Amino acid sequence: MLASIEAGGTKFVCAVGDHQFNIIDRTSFPTTCPEETMAKIIGFFDACEDIQAMGIGSFGPIGINHQAPNYGYITSTPKTKWRNYNFLGEMKKHYQCPIGWTTDVNAACLGEYHLGSATDKNSCLYLTVGTGVGGGAIFNGRFLEGFGHAEMGHILLRNHSKDPFQGSCPYHGNCLEGLASGPAIEKRCGVKAEELDKNHPIWEMIGYYLAQALVNYTLILRPEKIVLGGGVMSQSKVLEFVKKEFSLMLADYVEIPAVDEYIVLPSLGNNAGITGGLILAHQLI
Amino acid sequence: MLASIEAGGTKFVCAVGDHQFNIIDRTSFPTTCPEETMAKIIGFFDACEDIQAMGIGSFGPIGINHQAPNYGYITSTPKTKWRNYNFLGEMKKHYQCPIGWTTDVNAACLGEYHLGSATDKNSCLYLTVGTGVGGGAIFNGRFLEGFGHAEMGHILLRNHSKDPFQGSCPYHGNCLEGLASGPAIEKRCGVKAEELDKNHPIWEMIGYYLAQALVNYTLILRPEKIVLGGGVMSQSKVLEFVKKEFSLMLADYVEIPAVDEYIVLPSLGNNAGITGGLILAHQLI
Ligand SMILES: Nc1ncnc2c1ncn2[C@@H]1O[C@H](COP(=O)(O)OP(=O)(O)O)[C@@H](O)[C@H]1O
Ligand SMILES: Nc1ncnc2c1ncn2[C@@H]1O[C@H](COP(=O)(O)OP(=O)(O)O)[C@@H](O)[C@H]1O
Ligand SMILES: [Zn+2]
Ligand SMILES: [Zn+2]
Repeated sequence: MLASIEAGGTKFVCAVGDHQFNIIDRTSFPTTCPEETMAKIIGFFDACEDIQAMGIGSFGPIGINHQAPNYGYITSTPKTKWRNYNFLGEMKKHYQCPIGWTTDVNAACLGEYHLGSATDKNSCLYLTVGTGVGGGAIFNGRFLEGFGHAEMGHILLRNHSKDPFQGSCPYHGNCLEGLASGPAIEKRCGVKAEELDKNHPIWEMIGYYLAQALVNYTLILRPEKIVLGGGVMSQSKVLEFVKKEFSLMLADYVEIPAVDEYIVLPSLGNNAGITGGLILAHQLI
Repeated sequence: MLASIEAGGTKFVCAVGDHQFNIIDRTSFPTTCPEETMAKIIGFFDACEDIQAMGIGSFGPIGINHQAPNYGYITSTPKTKWRNYNFLGEMKKHYQCPIGWTTDVNAACLGEYHLGSATDKNSCLYLTVGTGVGGGAIFNGRFLEGFGHAEMGHILLRNHSKDPFQGSCPYHGNCLEGLASGPAIEKRCGVKAEELDKNHPIWEMIGYYLAQALVNYTLILRPEKIVLGGGVMSQSKVLEFVKKEFSLMLADYVEIPAVDEYIVLPSLGNNAGITGGLILAHQLI
């Protein structure tokens, strides 16, 4: 059996699956403090038989450099209880099997890369647009990471000509996350993003910002596929606006696949991350 | 012997070197039309003995996808004589040895990665700031490329609050190249960039734009080293402004190496590209 953890800032999902990545059992609980959360994780997996390997995709920032003392840690997160928490180390105290460790968005990217919408591609970018905005990428089967993992939700953008909003990111104000995340939408409109009408003008603006970011990702990375996940993408019109604005802004400057093939929703839906964790686990055995 | 071509939009450099990448002989001539240029290339290499492999780093855009019909071509360049020119195909008609093919900036990146300022790193980004702005990156020994090669000189930026310039890029106006290339500086100031005083206020602005781009590259790629080459970087104060503005804008949001180690000039100087071509050739034998 393979084990997978999707460690999100809002909720945790734990699952076990077989070697064909079928999810056999799963559970989910809100992210509270590490002690409580860890007890639930252990409670779930201890009831599962014969776990051969685990894969964890975690909210971050996290330490991914094997040589660094903070490898396996959740590091400078605004969630103070989780700051500098040795998550992987704690898991290793309880489980002797190999444990893979990456970001939540890298795990989702891995799921889509191997079993989702990018199965036939050599490269894929996954972007989540939810409480935060974050991205992960795989090129030739490997996560794109260097000195640390990507933080592509915080790139600097130009404001839309009709948007006076100064942004909600505590670090950068009007970075992508500060302009297009769920909380940024809520701050502008005064109601939760999911309560806004699908014809509200904000969705065109969100499309504009995501498109601008996608143009920059495209020029820098040239991925073969871009998968957009997260709560905000559930809004039925956002994807169309993103594709429209993207095509206008890119203006055929570089060749890309047909835009309907290039910018897509996760074909694994909400299972992208947890499936990616199973794949990560499988790579270790 | 190894052969190398640095095919630039302004000039071509051809060289031969030994297996330790010492340059044994070289020549250089202006980029005119393909027929004339090709004759000079062949004239130079035909006089060299025993060429085992060649590496070409070319101005672009170029076709790099082995499966595509335009592999080996210079494609949609504004230099009309070179548009859709089968450069690699023409070379292969004359030389039977293996020939490596990549962008000029990838070749320079390869030089710096193996023999220059990034020798001890697993990842490196090379950006040239000259007539154009272009970048190439290597992660774990491989060029970063997907559906095509990067065009990171054309990312969209925010204008500096004191800069009313609308940019010189014929495609995007005020993209990075449109704001910070040599011709963009010349268009703003009315004289060639190299003739401007080192205390001219433009250099702080150029530093601001390059820094903004470097922040975005850093958040998306997390390279371990960024090497800045090209004519504009010869201006003695630009690098200091870039590093200063970069540190201000990044605001410690992600961990990077010490900035003086992270953002550097090419330690191979003008030989980065031609040396990269020799390395590319060597990888084929
Ligand atoms: N249908 C919807 N339309 C627009 N926004 C939504 C929708 N559903 C959820 N959201 C927003 O997405 C965010 C939650 O994102 P989600 O990806 O579900 O979780 P998280 O990012 O916390 O893992 C919230 O800010 C919420 O307001
Ligand atoms: N010392 C200098 N200071 C500022 N700009 C310079 C300097 N030297 C050259 N340039 C500018 O750099 C550009 C040429 O860039 P270069 O990298 O030498 O060649 P290319 O990009 O054509 O391969 C020109 O626009 C020139 O004005
Ligand atoms: Zn931010
Ligand atoms: Zn441009």
